[in-house]
Amino acid sequence: MTMLDIGIIGGSGYTGCELMRLLLQHPEARVRIVTSRRLSGTRVTNIHRHLSGLIDLSFENPSPSEIADACDLVFTAVPHGAAMDIVPALLEGGTRVVDLSADYRLPAQVFEKTYGRAHTDPRDGDAVFGLPELHPEASGARLVANPGCYPTGAILSAAPLANAGMTRYAIFDSKSGISGAGVEPSNTSHYPNLAENVHAYNITTHRHLPEIVQELGLLDSSLNHNRVYFTPHVVPAIRGILTTAHLILREECEYDAIMDAYKEFYMDKPFVRVREAGDALPSLADVRGSNFCDIGLVCGGDRVVVISAIDNLVKGAAGQAIQNMNLMLGLPETCGLLIPPLSP
Amino acid sequence: MTMLDIGIIGGSGYTGCELMRLLLQHPEARVRIVTSRRLSGTRVTNIHRHLSGLIDLSFENPSPSEIADACDLVFTAVPHGAAMDIVPALLEGGTRVVDLSADYRLPAQVFEKTYGRAHTDPRDGDAVFGLPELHPEASGARLVANPGCYPTGAILSAAPLANAGMTRYAIFDSKSGISGAGVEPSNTSHYPNLAENVHAYNITTHRHLPEIVQELGLLDSSLNHNRVYFTPHVVPAIRGILTTAHLILREECEYDAIMDAYKEFYMDKPFVRVREAGDALPSLADVRGSNFCDIGLVCGGDRVVVISAIDNLVKGAAGQAIQNMNLMLGLPETCGLLIPPLSP
Amino acid sequence: MTMLDIGIIGGSGYTGCELMRLLLQHPEARVRIVTSRRLSGTRVTNIHRHLSGLIDLSFENPSPSEIADACDLVFTAVPHGAAMDIVPALLEGGTRVVDLSADYRLPAQVFEKTYGRAHTDPRDGDAVFGLPELHPEASGARLVANPGCYPTGAILSAAPLANAGMTRYAIFDSKSGISGAGVEPSNTSHYPNLAENVHAYNITTHRHLPEIVQELGLLDSSLNHNRVYFTPHVVPAIRGILTTAHLILREECEYDAIMDAYKEFYMDKPFVRVREAGDALPSLADVRGSNFCDIGLVCGGDRVVVISAIDNLVKGAAGQAIQNMNLMLGLPETCGLLIPPLSP
Amino acid sequence: MTMLDIGIIGGSGYTGCELMRLLLQHPEARVRIVTSRRLSGTRVTNIHRHLSGLIDLSFENPSPSEIADACDLVFTAVPHGAAMDIVPALLEGGTRVVDLSADYRLPAQVFEKTYGRAHTDPRDGDAVFGLPELHPEASGARLVANPGCYPTGAILSAAPLANAGMTRYAIFDSKSGISGAGVEPSNTSHYPNLAENVHAYNITTHRHLPEIVQELGLLDSSLNHNRVYFTPHVVPAIRGILTTAHLILREECEYDAIMDAYKEFYMDKPFVRVREAGDALPSLADVRGSNFCDIGLVCGGDRVVVISAIDNLVKGAAGQAIQNMNLMLGLPETCGLLIPPLSP
Repeated sequence: MTMLDIGIIGGSGYTGCELMRLLLQHPEARVRIVTSRRLSGTRVTNIHRHLSGLIDLSFENPSPSEIADACDLVFTAVPHGAAMDIVPALLEGGTRVVDLSADYRLPAQVFEKTYGRAHTDPRDGDAVFGLPELHPEASGARLVANPGCYPTGAILSAAPLANAGMTRYAIFDSKSGISGAGVEPSNTSHYPNLAENVHAYNITTHRHLPEIVQELGLLDSSLNHNRVYFTPHVVPAIRGILTTAHLILREECEYDAIMDAYKEFYMDKPFVRVREAGDALPSLADVRGSNFCDIGLVCGGDRVVVISAIDNLVKGAAGQAIQNMNLMLGLPETCGLLIPPLSP
Repeated sequence: MTMLDIGIIGGSGYTGCELMRLLLQHPEARVRIVTSRRLSGTRVTNIHRHLSGLIDLSFENPSPSEIADACDLVFTAVPHGAAMDIVPALLEGGTRVVDLSADYRLPAQVFEKTYGRAHTDPRDGDAVFGLPELHPEASGARLVANPGCYPTGAILSAAPLANAGMTRYAIFDSKSGISGAGVEPSNTSHYPNLAENVHAYNITTHRHLPEIVQELGLLDSSLNHNRVYFTPHVVPAIRGILTTAHLILREECEYDAIMDAYKEFYMDKPFVRVREAGDALPSLADVRGSNFCDIGLVCGGDRVVVISAIDNLVKGAAGQAIQNMNLMLGLPETCGLLIPPLSP
Repeated sequence: MTMLDIGIIGGSGYTGCELMRLLLQHPEARVRIVTSRRLSGTRVTNIHRHLSGLIDLSFENPSPSEIADACDLVFTAVPHGAAMDIVPALLEGGTRVVDLSADYRLPAQVFEKTYGRAHTDPRDGDAVFGLPELHPEASGARLVANPGCYPTGAILSAAPLANAGMTRYAIFDSKSGISGAGVEPSNTSHYPNLAENVHAYNITTHRHLPEIVQELGLLDSSLNHNRVYFTPHVVPAIRGILTTAHLILREECEYDAIMDAYKEFYMDKPFVRVREAGDALPSLADVRGSNFCDIGLVCGGDRVVVISAIDNLVKGAAGQAIQNMNLMLGLPETCGLLIPPLSP
Repeated sequence: MTMLDIGIIGGSGYTGCELMRLLLQHPEARVRIVTSRRLSGTRVTNIHRHLSGLIDLSFENPSPSEIADACDLVFTAVPHGAAMDIVPALLEGGTRVVDLSADYRLPAQVFEKTYGRAHTDPRDGDAVFGLPELHPEASGARLVANPGCYPTGAILSAAPLANAGMTRYAIFDSKSGISGAGVEPSNTSHYPNLAENVHAYNITTHRHLPEIVQELGLLDSSLNHNRVYFTPHVVPAIRGILTTAHLILREECEYDAIMDAYKEFYMDKPFVRVREAGDALPSLADVRGSNFCDIGLVCGGDRVVVISAIDNLVKGAAGQAIQNMNLMLGLPETCGLLIPPLSP
């Protein structure tokens, strides 16, 4: 059988690397091209040493049209603002694109306000927001904007109650591993600063908040910036985001009714595992290395606390991108993605 | 000068051990007796090996009245429910007591409901809630109930705004190191379960919540169980609690006004360090091993997010107990307690 | 195509769980039976929560002959001393066995001295020592004794120079993650005791030493207990063993000659990746979750320092067991096992 | 009583910071000047935030002679090669100096070969190698070269047997926390690279080896570069070095005789705690934050394995520097330094 050819633009970072790890286990697709301007000519396994013996490619630096010619689908894993320079040529070249940057997640105007730069390729409504549990229209799409890592966990934790119109306030308190900050060393990622520590940052201003508000607002228009709060933290972990959603409801509600809403909402969503009462609550170890989003919840009075856990590099980035790829290329949604979590 | 003689009832766990570490550095007080029923006769340094060469005592098991005779003040570092069996005899014996269990923190009726057991020594109003920043009446008291670790960080993060009557909802999301769970191995403390992980637990039902409600309610009677929420988590850290207080205010408020309220409220409180804008936010490393509580905050609309950081074994337990001891014995509040944090 | 049916005796611990994780990704074999006396009737995913949605089995407790009837091959993941009670019936029942305990790794006499108990099923020479890089005779074998985790990393680090007869002393200093100690909490695995710490233990007496001596002695009979030393440590890591082999040679030797010996020795061994000069040295992250053993080395005078890295639960246990299974069942050695490491 | 005035040249890094932490607890000395060229004018607590409320100084950049005038003793905590530019002027200015760089630890010729740069201030024999357990002549010295962190742990682990002339080979395998690499983020200190990992580095070529050989060679001239090996590793820990010394003796020896040699050698050394049989072996937690070096050992045939544990920033740097300061200024060796370890 012919394998689908996949391109990865920006293969030196964690997301590009994780795309390769996952695609190595995909039965229908293979990596054809991995680009890096800086590393062009270097063997991929010189940088991503753990993939030695598994992948036999060197970083290249071809033009977008060459990539489009060679590939059935291209992942753009480049910094925010850089994707919009590449994506138009890729689409014109006839390939499909999953963009892992923020460039196409928000309307151009919101993007410009949030990221403080002009958008040179506004195509509002043209890109699908690639959270497949909410946007099955990724099937057949030519351009999908893969969501941010925090929004994935936050939106999935609150969507069923937003959908039911029951939420007065949604306060998301997220605890993330540091790999979301990327491959470059920084003061925050410096081991003596992060080990045995917790840091809150961008407490009210994180750029992922508009994505959360956008998607919850589609389900419940009352959930706007005055009702939805998001505070991220980094914890001493490489991978994973645990989001604690403190949801204050319009009225008191029973656990059974709320749990039913979650189970129904995610009934046919293979990557969302709803943990019922009696189960332990979600934790990072249960999803490590996998594309699952685990969800559990506890009720008390007019408040529901929902816990979601994802691997930020998988369901929060590369795995979800491949989930979108599967839909775009007409493959089963789970194709190559039911990789068991690595626990312990 | 004569040293004050101190007794520690229950010296085998982390709290008893930490009392010894701190009292070794105290210029006016020394440990005279350390008890352990199980370990009676064993040298203290056989159990707390890091104190070898510094302390020359064996665990003993004398009666409360013998302890009271020998000691100017006694710390009871025993399980919840066990202190009430010992404290009456200690007080009758004429010594002073700082109880580190939960037995005297709450009115007996609330205690019984929260801890599910009868209270055999109700003395409501007789014990001071030992958060010295709110309860200076510890000075001269004979019995002080040392607060729980979570309540210390949570109450201090929200007290100034509670005091100003500005708070509509107070949602505390706490991230704790695992030493708060004690010296005994458990599934939660098992390294493969905790490393690289985060766990929420007792999401709406933690037994520290009544302390938080009690103390904030004294400052603002509208802050009752329908307005104050508390969700604890454990993170991969030995020591420390970072509390993220999501405070929803009655009306929008400016940063400067709120920061002024915090600075004024804690003006003469030597162990609370208010971090102003421009400073980095509090983190566990900044307080590790010390009695400080660092506080920082960010505002946005009708919401204030306050971050507090403490060492759960020091300001959250043994250090605060010694702070109370200083007040009870007429020593300067900071005596022997300005130990610099261990960072990195 | 028909899948091969596999049994796992002792499925509640880390090794049994890891066998399931890996077999879920195997194209030719599937888990048919998982046993646990204690958990019989409980769903597997109630214990191994991360496998929810992936495996639909309950723990059972059938007799060995029932298991033998149902399975093409059985893994015994039971405590040392318990395998010898089960294995004879399994073999008589006509199935093949990979035993992950220590029961069949050593001659019965050495076993009895090392483990301090009688051997009730001595079959010296009948079981293959399942280190496939040294013992290809696992192909077609009916009983394979899967090596210990430490011996796997230690033997592979030193075998080429032992084979060349060049080694005077072999001093193995190993650094292990804690998962090797199992799923039960202990003082050693208690997070406050292990985080930010390193422990040496069983410095001269670890029970894995006889395996190391046995296998190196087969290659170079001068390498006996007076020439081979082994000291294990635990480090703050869940998975992985990094072994530093300090090899003192009979005479000075050049790097190129030694590196050539390693490359030649492991030429057709798909799971051993020899890292050449210029590469970074092996580290745990490069092999995490995978069946690879990475090896690198540095020379100086009459000394060679070899570094090997494995995942103790994979190449050190379940992965190697499946590698043996592949050989025993006539499958390609790498079938289902080229799972990319999880890094970062 | 008048406090002694202390200067710290190079106060922005971990060593300078740790000197401040320790001197804040010293009853006879206080920090008078802290220098930093880059940070001159910045408040110390803006950089070392954990010291807020404890120290009220700003970084300065005075000339060496101004510092010498103001200070009874100066610590130079500057990069290797930078101290030799400052120390002569400090000594000429009449102050005493403890140099924490490598500049005066080795004969100039050895320094030049090891560090690959010319020595502009050779004063062989003029500086005391500041390991007080071996070099009491620090008392009254004007210039002390504070040892490297690895040499401190390695030399102390092997000195008694070297002194007894019993050692044939000394193979040091050290496991270090990452703080020894300094305050600047790097790939090695990047949390995703270090957490859950172990790295060997500079396996045969670390620049601390000549110090180890020099000092052991003074005790036993047969211990030269052909007999003494040193391999460092970094482990996921902020602080601490655990050294495993694999000592091969000239002949078999009994535990009791060797333990006696250690106890006698360190009889009057207050910072070396020899752990006897029955004690647990040394570990990083037992010495964290303190100036202790814990030593334990196990024997087997002609081999002794000695374990030593230090805090690399205290006994391996700032604490030992203050121990030297005490001796140089005629204070008791332990003055201000018996700070209990922080454990857990």
